[in-house]
Amino acid sequence: MLDSLSVVLVKPKYSENIGAAARACVNMGCPHLVVVSPKEYDAERAAALATPKGVEVLNTMRMEDDLATALAGFTSVYGTTARTGGWRKNVSTPARLSEAMVEDMRAGSVAVVFGPEDRGLTNEEIEICGRLICIPTMTDASSLNLAQAVVVVLYECFKAASIKPFSPKGPPVERPANHYEQEVLFETLQDMLVTVDFLKDASADYWMLPVRRFLQRRTLKRNEFNLLMGVCKQIMWAVNSKERGE
Amino acid sequence: MLDSLSVVLVKPKYSENIGAAARACVNMGCPHLVVVSPKEYDAERAAALATPKGVEVLNTMRMEDDLATALAGFTSVYGTTARTGGWRKNVSTPARLSEAMVEDMRAGSVAVVFGPEDRGLTNEEIEICGRLICIPTMTDASSLNLAQAVVVVLYECFKAASIKPFSPKGPPVERPANHYEQEVLFETLQDMLVTVDFLKDASADYWMLPVRRFLQRRTLKRNEFNLLMGVCKQIMWAVNSKERGE
Repeated sequence: MLDSLSVVLVKPKYSENIGAAARACVNMGCPHLVVVSPKEYDAERAAALATPKGVEVLNTMRMEDDLATALAGFTSVYGTTARTGGWRKNVSTPARLSEAMVEDMRAGSVAVVFGPEDRGLTNEEIEICGRLICIPTMTDASSLNLAQAVVVVLYECFKAASIKPFSPKGPPVERPANHYEQEVLFETLQDMLVTVDFLKDASADYWMLPVRRFLQRRTLKRNEFNLLMGVCKQIMWAVNSKERGE
Repeated sequence: MLDSLSVVLVKPKYSENIGAAARACVNMGCPHLVVVSPKEYDAERAAALATPKGVEVLNTMRMEDDLATALAGFTSVYGTTARTGGWRKNVSTPARLSEAMVEDMRAGSVAVVFGPEDRGLTNEEIEICGRLICIPTMTDASSLNLAQAVVVVLYECFKAASIKPFSPKGPPVERPANHYEQEVLFETLQDMLVTVDFLKDASADYWMLPVRRFLQRRTLKRNEFNLLMGVCKQIMWAVNSKERGE
């Protein structure tokens, strides 16, 4: 059902939560689980919570050392957060985002990223997620159990995918730019914006956020990626050659 | 937020699941947890999963020996099931029922009942639940973790309650018949229907189901309860006095 969706758990602390997340994946038809540098991984304790069906997901689970590597191949990345405000702009609910997620799944591959049990994703980790999901809860008790957060997000995706069944269209569409390409583009854009003095070097990361958000609102096609990269490089070449007085 | 909602866990096997359900209750603003004859209850293991906030719910949790006693005071009862068909008619999804649940919460007190981890609610337990909720999942992996099922149902109620804020109306409405009164009414109705040979004694429980479902589709007011009870008694008196040839 959610074949091109992956659940990415960043630094989970308890093997039981990895197992319970695997079970939620099976319940909602999401076959892929990625775990980034877990604090521990005890396969037996994970399997107990996964139930026999979830064990299949655990057996094909991908383990990675860092988030950037884990996300490199995806075309769309959604982060989850219990907090909003500050760096955490452009946050929406699973119900409002689920349709966009399902559309992204049909265009490419989608990751939904969950932070560790106690602290959630850091600002740096949030930054590389295209869109942010916040599950509505009581404001004074906003921290959900990790696997419960996973099941709520997958449940909304499952509902959205059931409502809008996939209808194959005519000609193949341009493949979306993957996450690695998107990051390359953002770096290039940032360099360019610093080069043209639109951004100051010291605060560039922060002021890039609205630019990232703007571009991440829709899936970027590969030809759009090429276009933007070309424009950036051209601008930088122009500025640098002017500086050299050419 | 969901002040007049109670989560009722029937014969849960693991204290951890009771704790995780308590945490889900706090996240979604549902303050009441009722546990019916748990297989075990280790307060320490429950508390570990409940987190400090969920412990408040555990501390005020009600323990009962049987489901009928646990449900007696509620005006609306919703059961949950992973299976459909057979006795399990009139099943709907949390998303479709959540609005009705929130309306019932405003009219009276609502219970949502979850069965044990391995088998769910029995047919007999299902029978005394007014409406049935089935969380959509993959058909070949429909069994959710208990606390995950709790969080999904509460999450839908929380969303529905947030969308439709409570607006106090003018005159006080007639209080709804509570669950005990409803059961008395169904018994009386069944006796009456057997008395008039509408139902045969041997299969009466089964054929009462559509009657129950029909009456449980809307919250029954106290004056409607009185009316129906009066009608039943009158019919039985009439039939019996005719048999005696009066």
